[in-house]
Amino acid sequence: MSEEKRESLVKIACCQIEPKVGLKEQNVKKTLDYIRKAVDEEANLILLPELSNTGYVFNTRQEAYELAEKIPEGDTAQTWVEYAEKHGVYIAAGIAERDGDNLYNSSILVGPEGFIGNYRKLHLWNREKLFFEPGDLGLPVYNTPIGRLGMYICYDMWFPEMTRIYALQGVDLILNVTNWVASEKPSEDSRLTETVCVSNAYMNAIFIAAADRIGVERMQPFLGRSMIVSPSGEVLGGPASYDSEEIIYAKCNLSEARLRKRKTRLNHVILDRRTDVYDALLGYGEIPFNW
Amino acid sequence: MSEEKRESLVKIACCQIEPKVGLKEQNVKKTLDYIRKAVDEEANLILLPELSNTGYVFNTRQEAYELAEKIPEGDTAQTWVEYAEKHGVYIAAGIAERDGDNLYNSSILVGPEGFIGNYRKLHLWNREKLFFEPGDLGLPVYNTPIGRLGMYICYDMWFPEMTRIYALQGVDLILNVTNWVASEKPSEDSRLTETVCVSNAYMNAIFIAAADRIGVERMQPFLGRSMIVSPSGEVLGGPASYDSEEIIYAKCNLSEARLRKRKTRLNHVILDRRTDVYDALLGYGEIPFNW
Repeated sequence: MSEEKRESLVKIACCQIEPKVGLKEQNVKKTLDYIRKAVDEEANLILLPELSNTGYVFNTRQEAYELAEKIPEGDTAQTWVEYAEKHGVYIAAGIAERDGDNLYNSSILVGPEGFIGNYRKLHLWNREKLFFEPGDLGLPVYNTPIGRLGMYICYDMWFPEMTRIYALQGVDLILNVTNWVASEKPSEDSRLTETVCVSNAYMNAIFIAAADRIGVERMQPFLGRSMIVSPSGEVLGGPASYDSEEIIYAKCNLSEARLRKRKTRLNHVILDRRTDVYDALLGYGEIPFNW
Repeated sequence: MSEEKRESLVKIACCQIEPKVGLKEQNVKKTLDYIRKAVDEEANLILLPELSNTGYVFNTRQEAYELAEKIPEGDTAQTWVEYAEKHGVYIAAGIAERDGDNLYNSSILVGPEGFIGNYRKLHLWNREKLFFEPGDLGLPVYNTPIGRLGMYICYDMWFPEMTRIYALQGVDLILNVTNWVASEKPSEDSRLTETVCVSNAYMNAIFIAAADRIGVERMQPFLGRSMIVSPSGEVLGGPASYDSEEIIYAKCNLSEARLRKRKTRLNHVILDRRTDVYDALLGYGEIPFNW
C-alpha cells in the first residue's frame, strides 16, 4: 500500500498488563510505564485493560466504592489526560467510576484535546452485578481526527448487537478494554475469545483492538491474548501470550473499515441487511418464547 | 452424561458433496446415496449443501429457471420426502425453487411426517442477485419432535441478526445448508468461515450444523470444512476436509441449547441483552450515517 493511500494511519498499542487489586497508585504507575514504552515505539493510540487502575476481583461493594473515582475529575483520569495532552496521543483504558453513590465499570477515552468521553459497561459479568450499576450512557461514538471510535468492555463483545450498532453508526475501530476471565487454567488452547473477536470484526467489517489483562487475582485467572483485528478478520497484532505482560502493536489504516464494507460489486455488509425482516423480530417484547 | 439426561438426542450427519451444475438427476441420486450412508450410521437428521440438486454457478437466469422446481410438488422435493417418510428421518437440503416466475435459493426440511417447510435465502451473495429473488418467507421456525429447528443458507450466517433472531425464538439448532465460496484456492488455512460459525453458535448458545460443498465449478472454488458446533462453541463434528466428499457426524443433545443459555447464576445469554439500548439503534432508518 502506498503512503498516499493511508488515509487514516494509526499505530495502535494494546498494553497487556497485570493490575493488582486495590493497589491503585502502583497500577496507575504501571499504566504510565507501559504507555511510555508504547509511545517510544511511536504508537499514537494506546489501550489498557478493563479496571486497569483498581484490579478486577473486588470482595465487597465497599472495596470497589473506595477505589472508584469521578470521571474526568479523579486522579487516575487526570493522570492519563495530562499524558495524552502532553504527548499528543490517544489513550483508552478501563477505570472504576463513581458518580454520586453509583459505581460503574467504565472506560475512558482521552487524547491530545484532553478528556474525550467515557463508556459505562452495558453487560455486567457475574459478580460485577453485585458491585456495579449497569451502564447508562448507551453506545457513545467519538468522531476524532484519527477516525470514528467506539468502546466496549469484555462481556459486551458476546452481544452481537454491540458490534453491529457501532458498525451501523460508522465506527471504524472498537476499543475493547477487557479482562477476559478463564473458566479453567488458561493455555495456548484458550481460543474462544479470539474466535469471537475475529468473527465480530469480520462480520461487521470493523477494526477491533482488545487489551486484556493476565494473571490470577483472588483465584480468578485471566486469558491474556490481546489482539488487533482488521475488518477482513485478519489478526494484525497479537494474539499476545496468555501469561506475560507485553505490548502488541499494529499499524492500521482505519479507512479500511469503510472501504471493506463493500464485499463485491453486488454486496455490502450494511446495505445487504434485511431490516424488513429483522425489525419485527429483534425487539425483546415481540419474541414468542418464555425464558 | 447418563442416558436419562439426553432429553433430545439426535445424531446429525452433514453430507459434504460435490454437485455438478446442471446434472440434476445425477446430483439427486448422489444426495440419496449419501443420505443412505448416513442412515446406515444411524443418523436421524441429515444435511446436504446449498443448491444440492442443481449445482451453484449458473451462467444465466434461464439456466437456473429450467432447473428450479416447485416445493414440495417437484421431483427433487418428493424424492427426499418419500425417503424421509419411509425411513423416519429428517433431511434438510438446498434446492433451487421456482414459484410462478420467481426463483429462490431455498432450503427444504422434510421428516417422518413428510414435508415440513422451506426457507428462502434472505441474503443473496454476488451473482445470485442476478438470478434469484431475495427470500420472502422470513425466518421460519419448525417445532419438531427432535427440537426447534431453523435454517439459513451460506452468506446469511454473516448477518449476526440471523443467528440472534433464531436464538430469540428458542431455536435449538440452525441447519446451515451452504456453498461457502473461496476467494482464493482453499487450503487448511481457510478458517474464517469456521470462525464465524463457531462464534455465532457460542455467542447465542445454539447448535449450528453446516453442510458445505467442495470442488471447483466454472472457476469458482468452494471451501468444504463442514462442521457441527455446540452451544458452548465446541466443534462436535468436523471440520471436514476442504477437498473431499465425506460425511461428518455428531450426537447432540439439543436440550443443551436451552440449558447453556444460562452462563452463571447471574448471567443469561438472552436475559442479559440491553434491549433498552439496542431498540432505538438497530433499526436501519435510525442510523445517522450515509452508506
